[in-house]
Amino acid sequence: MTAEQIQDVVGYMNEVGRRARHAARAMARAGTGQKNAALTAIADLLDAQRDAIAAANRQDLEAGAAKGLDAALLDRLELTPGRIDAMIEGLRQIAALPDPIGAISDLDYRPSGIQVGRMRVPLGVVGIIYESRPNVTADAAALCLKSGNATVLRGGSEAFASNQAIAACIQQGLEQAELPAEGVQVVATTDRAAVGAMIAMPDCIDVIIPRGGKGLIERISRDARVPVIKHLDGICHVYIDAHADLDKAFAIALNAKTQRYGTCNTMETLLVDAAVADRILPRLGAAYLEKGVELRGCGRTRDLLPDAVPATDADWDTEYLAPILSIRVVDGLDEAMDHIASHSSAHTESIVTEDYSRARRFLREVDSSSVMVNASTRFADGFEYGLGAEIGISTDKFHARGPVGLEGLTSLKFVVLGNGEVRV
Amino acid sequence: MTAEQIQDVVGYMNEVGRRARHAARAMARAGTGQKNAALTAIADLLDAQRDAIAAANRQDLEAGAAKGLDAALLDRLELTPGRIDAMIEGLRQIAALPDPIGAISDLDYRPSGIQVGRMRVPLGVVGIIYESRPNVTADAAALCLKSGNATVLRGGSEAFASNQAIAACIQQGLEQAELPAEGVQVVATTDRAAVGAMIAMPDCIDVIIPRGGKGLIERISRDARVPVIKHLDGICHVYIDAHADLDKAFAIALNAKTQRYGTCNTMETLLVDAAVADRILPRLGAAYLEKGVELRGCGRTRDLLPDAVPATDADWDTEYLAPILSIRVVDGLDEAMDHIASHSSAHTESIVTEDYSRARRFLREVDSSSVMVNASTRFADGFEYGLGAEIGISTDKFHARGPVGLEGLTSLKFVVLGNGEVRV
Repeated sequence: MTAEQIQDVVGYMNEVGRRARHAARAMARAGTGQKNAALTAIADLLDAQRDAIAAANRQDLEAGAAKGLDAALLDRLELTPGRIDAMIEGLRQIAALPDPIGAISDLDYRPSGIQVGRMRVPLGVVGIIYESRPNVTADAAALCLKSGNATVLRGGSEAFASNQAIAACIQQGLEQAELPAEGVQVVATTDRAAVGAMIAMPDCIDVIIPRGGKGLIERISRDARVPVIKHLDGICHVYIDAHADLDKAFAIALNAKTQRYGTCNTMETLLVDAAVADRILPRLGAAYLEKGVELRGCGRTRDLLPDAVPATDADWDTEYLAPILSIRVVDGLDEAMDHIASHSSAHTESIVTEDYSRARRFLREVDSSSVMVNASTRFADGFEYGLGAEIGISTDKFHARGPVGLEGLTSLKFVVLGNGEVRV
Repeated sequence: MTAEQIQDVVGYMNEVGRRARHAARAMARAGTGQKNAALTAIADLLDAQRDAIAAANRQDLEAGAAKGLDAALLDRLELTPGRIDAMIEGLRQIAALPDPIGAISDLDYRPSGIQVGRMRVPLGVVGIIYESRPNVTADAAALCLKSGNATVLRGGSEAFASNQAIAACIQQGLEQAELPAEGVQVVATTDRAAVGAMIAMPDCIDVIIPRGGKGLIERISRDARVPVIKHLDGICHVYIDAHADLDKAFAIALNAKTQRYGTCNTMETLLVDAAVADRILPRLGAAYLEKGVELRGCGRTRDLLPDAVPATDADWDTEYLAPILSIRVVDGLDEAMDHIASHSSAHTESIVTEDYSRARRFLREVDSSSVMVNASTRFADGFEYGLGAEIGISTDKFHARGPVGLEGLTSLKFVVLGNGEVRV
């Protein structure tokens, strides 16, 4: 099916949503073996269909080049053999993860005689809205499948052919495992009205996970009629305390900024206690300059780093996603935490200190999805945390917070086991 | 302060919200002893201020009677000495509950050397919107305080003087424990615009919990710009399976309907397997009629219970909150679960059976906030489940589901403990 064949986009999306809601019951009751069989079958099919997938991807790349897409976008769009390998490997890894669904915890007896516990259950239907990377199609479908959810995927228009080729493998794999093909649907239109319809169907879709640029995510969050799992910004801080081990501070502050520039867990602002600024900043400043990082500092920073340009108020609220770092010298932990409370995007913050009480306060009082002591902010990631995989990162406090793996795609219901008890 | 003194309601609410957001940091870092001291101080103050509270309540009752409020509303509004006792006792019980905040779970080492765990943290600022019962003011404030949240409470206009009298005790108690009085604010205006402002302040209020009639909750859910913890309907089912112990079935079906009529966990529809309908329905029907319950049945039900009136399609989707019961005879578990999937409000459903496999399927496959085997739906309640107290019941799957106690007012953040690790 191609985009041009669908005239009534809202009607089509309602039909997609209705089929997803219907399939959700079968996905929720699917056994662990059946879900793993589907994941393995999809991996095998992607392997067998490499040529077809690569051909579809070439079609997207040629259309993209003809449309004048920039090199970065074309790179994200490309499915190299290595990326197809990674997609297949990802499916096998998700098959190997423990199944969260149906697990019952805390099944305790109550004075009335009933036993009360909580069972982990799927959310229902998960809608994923993403941009150019076609590998998200397989990754997101696999996480939703393993967590017992039905999924509606809406990828970027520039990856349309690639996504449809991957979708064909997914649906065939579901059928081989005797699961409904409608358990994972990839929207077969590039019409933007599909997104508007998708985020306003609370009867059919339980949660939306947008992946892409800030503009997309802001728009979806503003207009959605269902819950959204998201993060907008990653303005992450490292605070070098007066009692920091300065070798650890150097390694962490350098890694947090320069290991990768474009990721949401990259440090954007460095806070340094005035008591150690003169001992750590010159050394760090030289290392940053060697890596080509532009430094923007407060007055006290610039006294120590004359190469730094003056930071403006806007710098403290900017996610650069680039080799730029803002630096501020502060007087102690409280001023550092006040700065974080005012300017952080609640993604990830790290303190470098050997002081027990300050580490303990920072951990308790900083209100971010990840709070660290003596570790690089770059660790804020589902794989590094041992979640097995990650469907996104949430900076909201409601439902899931931080890297979201299988558990974030589930809910808990109460289960009660009785023997004829009644309430008196 | 009285309602009439506030001219700019939106400006006033913004100020309330700003103060709450500011107080939230102090509430979040308050220690267990400090929070318990505040709860105990508030309990003592409510006890000492009984006369003032009763006088304020009489003022509300007289104004209500003059306005012609009906008897049921006046009853909910009244703070009898027994209800004041219960309010005080509730505060002491919440002080005795374990403090969920700051608890770290699953602090495991990862291959990189970092330790990753999750810390339970407050949501931030909780907004409660409720109707006539003034005791909600103390109950809700206490649960939010214990869970480290700041709270904005907006009670019904008919309870204005009672709520303000209770609020005075709460704020004095907070100050005695050296917590900010702004940690719990009771909105000091009866202007309805205050509600509209409150549900549209995502910068100041993190979640709204409405308590009251379905109309209020629907309106708030539709217009809120922040997450809402709520349930709209309680259309609860009991399914009597072919392999039910009929004495248990009789006790449960009678209790689930008749122990209280107006509660959300009361059974509204009884499903009976055709194989046992002729052995259980006549006995149950007689008991219901003796209690004055009106029966509305399908054709097969009416063959066995000639006194039942015909059920219409609308009956299967109605929460009666009254001595009325709809009854349907079904052919087996799948038909029962299909009926529940189509008509349940996802609140609470119970199967009565001695059959292991059917009990197991019902527990896994029924998608409601509470799913029971051989127990009355009336047990779906925070106290009965051992949560200690309950701020409400959620039929959503996102964040909290089922009876919501302290834990539902919290979130989990990731904590990472390292020794200078960087990402490679």
